[in-house]
Amino acid sequence: MSLQSIKYTRGSLEILDQLLLPVQSKYLPVRGVEDGWKVINKMQVRGAPAIAIVGCLSLAVEIHPEEFDSKKSLRQELEGKLNYLVSARPTAVNMKMAADELLSLANDLTKDDNVDVAAMKQRFLNATEAMLKKDIADNRAIGAHGAKAILQLVAAAAGAPMSGPVRVLTHCNTGSLATAGYGTALGVVRQLSELGKLEHVYCTETRPYNQGARLTAYELVHEKFPATLVLDSMVAALLRAKNVAAVVVGADRVAANGDTANKIGTYQIAVVAKHHGVPFFVAAPLTSIDLHIPSGDHIIIEERPDREMTHVGEHRIAAPGINCWNPAFDVTPASLITGIITERGVFQPAQLKETITKLLET
Amino acid sequence: MSLQSIKYTRGSLEILDQLLLPVQSKYLPVRGVEDGWKVINKMQVRGAPAIAIVGCLSLAVEIHPEEFDSKKSLRQELEGKLNYLVSARPTAVNMKMAADELLSLANDLTKDDNVDVAAMKQRFLNATEAMLKKDIADNRAIGAHGAKAILQLVAAAAGAPMSGPVRVLTHCNTGSLATAGYGTALGVVRQLSELGKLEHVYCTETRPYNQGARLTAYELVHEKFPATLVLDSMVAALLRAKNVAAVVVGADRVAANGDTANKIGTYQIAVVAKHHGVPFFVAAPLTSIDLHIPSGDHIIIEERPDREMTHVGEHRIAAPGINCWNPAFDVTPASLITGIITERGVFQPAQLKETITKLLET
Repeated sequence: MSLQSIKYTRGSLEILDQLLLPVQSKYLPVRGVEDGWKVINKMQVRGAPAIAIVGCLSLAVEIHPEEFDSKKSLRQELEGKLNYLVSARPTAVNMKMAADELLSLANDLTKDDNVDVAAMKQRFLNATEAMLKKDIADNRAIGAHGAKAILQLVAAAAGAPMSGPVRVLTHCNTGSLATAGYGTALGVVRQLSELGKLEHVYCTETRPYNQGARLTAYELVHEKFPATLVLDSMVAALLRAKNVAAVVVGADRVAANGDTANKIGTYQIAVVAKHHGVPFFVAAPLTSIDLHIPSGDHIIIEERPDREMTHVGEHRIAAPGINCWNPAFDVTPASLITGIITERGVFQPAQLKETITKLLET
Repeated sequence: MSLQSIKYTRGSLEILDQLLLPVQSKYLPVRGVEDGWKVINKMQVRGAPAIAIVGCLSLAVEIHPEEFDSKKSLRQELEGKLNYLVSARPTAVNMKMAADELLSLANDLTKDDNVDVAAMKQRFLNATEAMLKKDIADNRAIGAHGAKAILQLVAAAAGAPMSGPVRVLTHCNTGSLATAGYGTALGVVRQLSELGKLEHVYCTETRPYNQGARLTAYELVHEKFPATLVLDSMVAALLRAKNVAAVVVGADRVAANGDTANKIGTYQIAVVAKHHGVPFFVAAPLTSIDLHIPSGDHIIIEERPDREMTHVGEHRIAAPGINCWNPAFDVTPASLITGIITERGVFQPAQLKETITKLLET
């Protein structure tokens, strides 16, 4: 069973406190929306899908034991508490989108005369729980498609009917700790392991926040995967020395032409993979693909404060007075990407727009 | 005047305590070989040439006020104290080589009947001081050749008679803090600045020991160069965004075919420079070029302890239990190197062996 960052059964929710990782593994009970607001605001839960799901589940836990006089009073409570949850991290778009969706459902149910207050509450709880299930199911599908694509490529390159176990490299954290519980790029790694085809996984440190060293490494140790941490500067030496079959990374946003914005360092890994002839895959749910953005040139890259680079905790590691350049993301051009792995299949960047437009029509 | 890591006048020696950098800048007096042994052993001075020069100068400071009965007693004292200095860091080959050279001089002078004890002491002091001067002079020559080569390339690419100011990138620390006081790759940067041709210098953090963030950044701030620190993962994004004219790095060892072993991450930068069409230079004194090594395949790469990667000081930054791969160096193949900058000129890797063989013959 993969590491659970969110433990939920109806009426009960706990989350793994990410602020204490990787040194301490402690689950925090989330008893209602006040707890939900706090864990989101204090960043004890992180990753866009995880924030939205924990927020909504905290509301599910809160209303589960309550009884409501009328659909109107239930609707009012839902609206107020969803707005409250959105305020925990106003820039977290996924929480706002989830809140809008649930509020729209509450409005529809309020108007539907065939639904009484008890049924409305049930339907609301089901919808909330479905978000958790869908994220995990989508991630599992991404994992399955990605693992299959990598193994097929390796087999084809060797002229063999089937691939043996493979070595893969990933960057940043895209696992249970960034999603509802399975992972995108790390979901591909999990699937390789489930298929008995994971020889080794390498993860990069991912400066400046060290999500690879702290979080991915934590997940890999938890899963007992054969795994090794490397520094961001070592990827070229690694690909040269260790016969890595594929690189698989996540995405913050994919443009219509396949250009992909992801954690700083991704572009460099793609360049290095190309030089060594190693396939480079992006794993992302369809919701991360934005067909309204024609290319990566239109993606604005956030530049973050110097302090993230000059300090580790309170410890200064850079010379006082030095300027820093700290882009949070970079854009990998589609030409360096072998395939984009989604829950509906693996697409070549050039086919992305056409294929997804068709998928969304059907 | 460039940052002085070693301050020497006859009878007086001080070194910049590198253990306190970059937060504190404090010079330590070195009053004789006991102090010399301590600063080498405690790594308050680092960098192969600097260690040898500080060791020998500490002996010069010690014998300067002393009077000797006979050449034999002077020779005995020199031999004993040189051996003592070598024991401070037995793996530091440069100190051993310098000690052998000075001891051989002492033996010759002892045998030479035309030299009295006072003259022998003078000649010994002169020889010691010449090491400091030679290292700086060689570095200045490297800087001049390198700056000229970069500016010529840029001018040629633009079809212009002269290049304007340029932006360059360097890796690790190759400056005053690693040499006797000027630097190899950083010497090239200094020369560009002296010529009024340095628009901007970027330096990489250089994990795991952060020599770029701690030491190079410290030197760049000290010199008031227009400078920016980037993370090791940002080089590709930097070369794409910032119109960098050239990369210039140091070398631990250069093989006869031009393959170059240098700080981990160098090979990756070379790959990324090639992808972006940015010239990639290695700056190294002739003593770093080992014609006995036919190619980089013959260079053994030291693998260092995990703890360097998992901790910053006492602060754990990686998940407990994760394996690490921590090669200290990597090898950049000659095919990725535009030119190797030495104190005798800039050579293409393919011409290296022939040219240097000729130079050494003349």
